Amino acid sequence: MSEPHPGMIARVFAVLNSFGDNRTRLTQSDLSRSTGLPLPTVHRLCRQLVDHGALERDDDGHYTIGVRIWELGSLAPRAHGLRQVALPYLEDLYEATHQNVQLVVLDGTDALYIERLSARNAVPLISRAGGRLPLHASSGGLVLLAHNRIELLDQVLAGGLAAFTPHTVTDEHRLRSVLADIRRTGVVVCREYLNLGSLAIAAPVRRGNEVVAAVSVVISVRDDPAPVVPALRAACRAISRGLI
Amino acid sequence: MSEPHPGMIARVFAVLNSFGDNRTRLTQSDLSRSTGLPLPTVHRLCRQLVDHGALERDDDGHYTIGVRIWELGSLAPRAHGLRQVALPYLEDLYEATHQNVQLVVLDGTDALYIERLSARNAVPLISRAGGRLPLHASSGGLVLLAHNRIELLDQVLAGGLAAFTPHTVTDEHRLRSVLADIRRTGVVVCREYLNLGSLAIAAPVRRGNEVVAAVSVVISVRDDPAPVVPALRAACRAISRGLI
Repeated sequence: MSEPHPGMIARVFAVLNSFGDNRTRLTQSDLSRSTGLPLPTVHRLCRQLVDHGALERDDDGHYTIGVRIWELGSLAPRAHGLRQVALPYLEDLYEATHQNVQLVVLDGTDALYIERLSARNAVPLISRAGGRLPLHASSGGLVLLAHNRIELLDQVLAGGLAAFTPHTVTDEHRLRSVLADIRRTGVVVCREYLNLGSLAIAAPVRRGNEVVAAVSVVISVRDDPAPVVPALRAACRAISRGLI
Repeated sequence: MSEPHPGMIARVFAVLNSFGDNRTRLTQSDLSRSTGLPLPTVHRLCRQLVDHGALERDDDGHYTIGVRIWELGSLAPRAHGLRQVALPYLEDLYEATHQNVQLVVLDGTDALYIERLSARNAVPLISRAGGRLPLHASSGGLVLLAHNRIELLDQVLAGGLAAFTPHTVTDEHRLRSVLADIRRTGVVVCREYLNLGSLAIAAPVRRGNEVVAAVSVVISVRDDPAPVVPALRAACRAISRGLI
């Protein structure tokens, strides 16, 4: 039996990573283009990935990520496991606010959205469950950044603080001050950092002493955030208790 | 560059498939045992899978499925895509019943649970989101079986109709009659097929003419299923409309 072949695993992930938010159905030609692999190689990889349920092929010859990957993902404790504990409390929070309620975790230098509950008439959002947002511009991301290793802040600063609106925090000193406030108050209120017209409030979820996630509520800038804060804090405390 | 190596992909999935409901945190020794691969091979595979975010390693040396797999799974149209469309209607159905509401799809010869909303005081369930149940014994599974290729029924019959309670359908002729009733009435009421004390009602979700999922509501055998049926049918119709 041969030893693990790094090139092979890299190629499998090159194929899988070709799929994305607006790229959920791809042909072998699409995959050959996005991976730079020759078409016969892509053909063989696809056949094997279909055999393992990682990809599914539809009648038109398009490939999609298979339900087996979804099922494996449901075993990821930092995503689905957390979500299972959090969902009842997110639902309570949603009932209390009837706006957008979101659960995010850190992945690399992004905030990864694990769950989102939205009223059909709530203010529109950029995020979706399974989507990503930058740490410095999203309320949940700021909470995760405030409670992480200092090296993460260095990385975020090195990547540059992109502006999404005129109100996004793009200045290093202001960012450090926002993060210090989060550590002191346990909550952040972001007025139009990511979209004009929306206001986001977020607080940390802890497992023991470690902040493992954040919950955010997104409302309209015309709404008063004050009544949301106690409900948000209570939900975060309840989820944290459930994680121990 | 070498050509795809079937043994390599099989080994990657042997490692990933070692994880399961009660096996979410595994050591390299656990993985070596479950895959039959030598420890040095497992060591190298794990390192590469961590590099790609497919596995995560905690401070105790345990591996878990990584959030990257969860994120890839969120791109699976048959699971997460369906769930995104269905969730608001499942929430409405949950509000109307305050019991257990579930969304299932077919995977192989199993019903795979994509979503579950449960009241904290609802009747207890066997299923979980990401979990599986046999087609012949679950209400959602029976709906999927009723509307699938006849070869699937042959496979299920060949696998044997295991009894979970004295009320599970274990007789081929009775099963065929239940499936015919589902096709005729568009709904199934399962009294204690899977657990004593619970009653499940399910109906199909269609994309065009094809049944792609089922929604089920699980209540107590002491409750009357009649008032649930119209709300369930309405939710399934609304989801089906959302899928076109």
